[in-house]
Amino acid sequence: MADGTPTVAVVGAAGYAGAIAAALLYRHPGFELRHVTARADAGQRLDDVHPRARVPLALEVFDIDAHGDVDAAVVCYPHGAAAPTVAALRERGVRVVDLSADFRLRDRAIYEDWYQPHGAPELFGGGIYGLPELHRDDVRGADLVANPGCYPTATLLALAPLARAGLIGDVIVDAKSGVSGAGREPTAATHFISADENLTPYKVGSHRHTPEIEQELAGLGAPVTVTFTPHLVPLAQGELVSCYVTPARDVDADELADLYDDAYAREPWVELRLGPPGVLDVRETNYCRLSVHFDPRAGRVMVFAAIDNLWKGAASQAVQNLDLMYGLDERAGLQ
Amino acid sequence: MADGTPTVAVVGAAGYAGAIAAALLYRHPGFELRHVTARADAGQRLDDVHPRARVPLALEVFDIDAHGDVDAAVVCYPHGAAAPTVAALRERGVRVVDLSADFRLRDRAIYEDWYQPHGAPELFGGGIYGLPELHRDDVRGADLVANPGCYPTATLLALAPLARAGLIGDVIVDAKSGVSGAGREPTAATHFISADENLTPYKVGSHRHTPEIEQELAGLGAPVTVTFTPHLVPLAQGELVSCYVTPARDVDADELADLYDDAYAREPWVELRLGPPGVLDVRETNYCRLSVHFDPRAGRVMVFAAIDNLWKGAASQAVQNLDLMYGLDERAGLQ
Amino acid sequence: MADGTPTVAVVGAAGYAGAIAAALLYRHPGFELRHVTARADAGQRLDDVHPRARVPLALEVFDIDAHGDVDAAVVCYPHGAAAPTVAALRERGVRVVDLSADFRLRDRAIYEDWYQPHGAPELFGGGIYGLPELHRDDVRGADLVANPGCYPTATLLALAPLARAGLIGDVIVDAKSGVSGAGREPTAATHFISADENLTPYKVGSHRHTPEIEQELAGLGAPVTVTFTPHLVPLAQGELVSCYVTPARDVDADELADLYDDAYAREPWVELRLGPPGVLDVRETNYCRLSVHFDPRAGRVMVFAAIDNLWKGAASQAVQNLDLMYGLDERAGLQ
Amino acid sequence: MADGTPTVAVVGAAGYAGAIAAALLYRHPGFELRHVTARADAGQRLDDVHPRARVPLALEVFDIDAHGDVDAAVVCYPHGAAAPTVAALRERGVRVVDLSADFRLRDRAIYEDWYQPHGAPELFGGGIYGLPELHRDDVRGADLVANPGCYPTATLLALAPLARAGLIGDVIVDAKSGVSGAGREPTAATHFISADENLTPYKVGSHRHTPEIEQELAGLGAPVTVTFTPHLVPLAQGELVSCYVTPARDVDADELADLYDDAYAREPWVELRLGPPGVLDVRETNYCRLSVHFDPRAGRVMVFAAIDNLWKGAASQAVQNLDLMYGLDERAGLQ
Repeated sequence: MADGTPTVAVVGAAGYAGAIAAALLYRHPGFELRHVTARADAGQRLDDVHPRARVPLALEVFDIDAHGDVDAAVVCYPHGAAAPTVAALRERGVRVVDLSADFRLRDRAIYEDWYQPHGAPELFGGGIYGLPELHRDDVRGADLVANPGCYPTATLLALAPLARAGLIGDVIVDAKSGVSGAGREPTAATHFISADENLTPYKVGSHRHTPEIEQELAGLGAPVTVTFTPHLVPLAQGELVSCYVTPARDVDADELADLYDDAYAREPWVELRLGPPGVLDVRETNYCRLSVHFDPRAGRVMVFAAIDNLWKGAASQAVQNLDLMYGLDERAGLQ
Repeated sequence: MADGTPTVAVVGAAGYAGAIAAALLYRHPGFELRHVTARADAGQRLDDVHPRARVPLALEVFDIDAHGDVDAAVVCYPHGAAAPTVAALRERGVRVVDLSADFRLRDRAIYEDWYQPHGAPELFGGGIYGLPELHRDDVRGADLVANPGCYPTATLLALAPLARAGLIGDVIVDAKSGVSGAGREPTAATHFISADENLTPYKVGSHRHTPEIEQELAGLGAPVTVTFTPHLVPLAQGELVSCYVTPARDVDADELADLYDDAYAREPWVELRLGPPGVLDVRETNYCRLSVHFDPRAGRVMVFAAIDNLWKGAASQAVQNLDLMYGLDERAGLQ
Repeated sequence: MADGTPTVAVVGAAGYAGAIAAALLYRHPGFELRHVTARADAGQRLDDVHPRARVPLALEVFDIDAHGDVDAAVVCYPHGAAAPTVAALRERGVRVVDLSADFRLRDRAIYEDWYQPHGAPELFGGGIYGLPELHRDDVRGADLVANPGCYPTATLLALAPLARAGLIGDVIVDAKSGVSGAGREPTAATHFISADENLTPYKVGSHRHTPEIEQELAGLGAPVTVTFTPHLVPLAQGELVSCYVTPARDVDADELADLYDDAYAREPWVELRLGPPGVLDVRETNYCRLSVHFDPRAGRVMVFAAIDNLWKGAASQAVQNLDLMYGLDERAGLQ
Repeated sequence: MADGTPTVAVVGAAGYAGAIAAALLYRHPGFELRHVTARADAGQRLDDVHPRARVPLALEVFDIDAHGDVDAAVVCYPHGAAAPTVAALRERGVRVVDLSADFRLRDRAIYEDWYQPHGAPELFGGGIYGLPELHRDDVRGADLVANPGCYPTATLLALAPLARAGLIGDVIVDAKSGVSGAGREPTAATHFISADENLTPYKVGSHRHTPEIEQELAGLGAPVTVTFTPHLVPLAQGELVSCYVTPARDVDADELADLYDDAYAREPWVELRLGPPGVLDVRETNYCRLSVHFDPRAGRVMVFAAIDNLWKGAASQAVQNLDLMYGLDERAGLQ
């Protein structure tokens, strides 16, 4: 960091999100990508494992002594595995954006109820929830940012203006995601023949993003129990949440339009539109594109939000957080 | 009909549903397919226009004098265009299954509010709503059957047990359909480049299947205003409805399981499953596959139902109705 | 077999081809499906593992004592594993259609060069190559039929008329297959994210169907070295071979049309067309659809043939062979 | 152009290639995108018609007086319509990259045989064939660059080293393209239901890219008649050419590797690989990725080349040409 450019490592760069984070940081004008690590794929070059990333660096097995020399790290490990690695990096003073759920929740009982015993309890609750549109100022000063889950990202951007306005009486979130959300591991569910031309709900009533959504909605003033159902859709990258809100009081289309315009007109990564978004509109971008609708027949508010689950739902949002942490424009490296 | 085999015509056989109806009836042991008609494609053989149907008959322009000699007809015209053709066929004594919306609604003001002035007002309300699982006995004696819309088919099968039990306090239907639901006309929306890798809500708050669903739910004892939102999904054939019901009273998983088991255990074309259905499970079949779930956290009932929008949602359900109208086993010609 | 209906087993019914073979035989008017076997999925019902097959039988681990009581078996094991199982079945007098390559080749050195040491050398060469359009009479009397590979099926149907007429001077086969050809095992290559929106050659210069194609072409009078390159295409089921033939002597479009018409006009499962076939035209059918073209500029003959790799390329062709072996119409159970 | 930054217009920016050209030039550090024109979509903003392009400019009907004030233009009109527009721009001194075929061929009889009477005969033959890897120096000084067709781009990059070495005895090109190659017009062929899960050859023996390939191969020393067959593949963007060359003399794998390494090791937009390329590897990039193979059994050379048909096959190659024309690094604006 002789020249002042912060150095970064992507830990777990062989997964889908990790590879994109590495690709973005490799070309980022404000960071120097120094290390990319992986387990099973160590020894290969990242651009052989993920040709599209075009990062000509060798993947190495993570070693805190070898890779802890950076200023910042993006950790792309599964839930549970992330916590001890994050703890080791923090101990060296490395600033971390963690893509797992390990530092997103603030109630350890809820974490352990939905996940497992926590792997770094001393750090539990020490992360800033890295949804910049909600917590921008906190992210700026943070040393440990918990990057939100993909579904919570889209859902919270869809619902935040309603939550803040006290308008959420009840909410149902019907979510749809492309297959990359299931990760790079080949399984029966990710086999082309299972997913192609198919469409199915999964983890009905039990998806782990539910408590994360509820925690953040409560923080915005809407302590509701969320009905959240994800569906698997036959496309690679993209996620749409369809939110059905029974308003807590009378509301009309004009008030809704004003609420959303006030919230998002100046946000660089939120595109507010009159018509419903398509996931293709935001593919391979950091944008969240959304629309709000009022159905006077049923007296219901509907909000639709589309993101790329691997970008705004993971890797590019991590870079947006890094930008904020280092005082850069949060569009840097993401255009 | 010398040998007693009823003769049939498929009017509008060049569309997706019409071609499948023709294919099913061409091979049906209980019917003789005598005519297939079309406008733009007249003069071609059906198996040139739709190779998969493998029906080696010439498409002719519909002419009541030439084609009104059959015992029964399946009419596959758009809304509005169907009514006068159905009227002409009925005048000749031809029994009709109509795939349009023209004879589904019983309140003409509602029809004309959501559609247009009706094209055969003397027949309005004279059709039996042809969802066999709900109206089997009426279909048996009917001369004019209004084949349900694809979304109402799946939604009503999903909700009927709850509606009959007085359990529907409030209901949201988030529906997803493959691209064939948009019809054979090439448009910007059906272009491969628009639909592929995309996913988007459409006709938010305004889809014409809404009053049809509400009419039938009311008939089952659940006079609710339905929030219904369809989404376009990148697959050819298949439809899933995700129904979120706030129950009108306390209920539990056991009661729900009993309700659905009672309703569907003996239905030949409904597959009740514990886990959520995938649309691929029912592709190119007359099955509706569904599951019912109770979320004790939110106190909400969720029902998921999958059909093939062109089969159970249109063509094969028309054949099921014809089977009933002619006293045949309603599995005939559909296995 | 008290009533004379032959009983059959599908050995290896949990794979894609095996499940389809079981589905076809379960509904076949001329056979009684008695057993379905599997290894990893034993204990489950076939219709839970493969809902679309709708075969409500339990999968059992294969046991020659328990399952060798049938008249015939369709063996759907990988190359190498098939041979000893086929031998055990033959020893009990069971007539076998084997879907592996173990009994397709007649030169054991070639087999062992492209595959491995043979697992039942005493039976090597004892199978009839079960492409009914070429070897119908031999199949009729056979006790062991080697079902052709998917690529050889399409390629040989495309080239047989030219081969018999001595017209093949040189031939290049550029083949394209949907992902189901890679089998049900989840791998990096069959992951949705690898295959979706992708297209790539594979096994360049080394695909094991090459010697099988060459053997059969030689048998038809065309002892050529074939350049054969398969490509993976982002669709589930379907296969197209594009054959480029430098003719051994002058030829013109009329002679070609006559040759193909003579060969295929009376074949129930070959559809000869003027325009090039699409794989969707034959999806989930036993048809091979093909067209022959002459390019006068380059003096070259082009033949395109489309099949469903799991049907005519595997399971339904196995049933066509069984039909012939038992003296049935070779359309039985396949319409 | 006060500050020396050349101004550009994209004429025909509402098509797929035009929108990408506009998106690249809007963000290009070396050009200022001043106008985007369209016919049917005039009056709309480009980012409403093509959200992914994110170009917030209004589409206007092309008018030489209004839009001829730029330094350079990329013309994205169909064959025939392009020529007079290009002529009008050239008359004003505007430097042009033309994406149509109107200025690619050098023999007017061949052009008029495969296309139609030429619309600007005084300019015929006045364009530089803009495949930078073959004609870089000529492009640098050109005022009119004929951007190559997508298939010729991939095919010529695949074959150029062999052509220059006198190695092409005979060549067959089996090409596969995603659906965007058929353009934005909704047609029966581009309907999702026609293309999805399908795969078919088209324009067998008659595709207009054939003479373009032959002209350029002849220019490289290989005056061969090419057998060229394109296929439509169910994906949005991507193109693969599989080239089968019967060598004019003995050759081996080492010589081939050296030939290709010499040709491409220093090319910024060609990725030479040992294993065959996938089209996904180059999606939304200006790269051509290729591999060369020798099959000693058949004595044949196989070359596989993948590009994105809308990028290196059209829009990004146009920008690469513009970069060269203005003395910029040919990677500018394309990373």
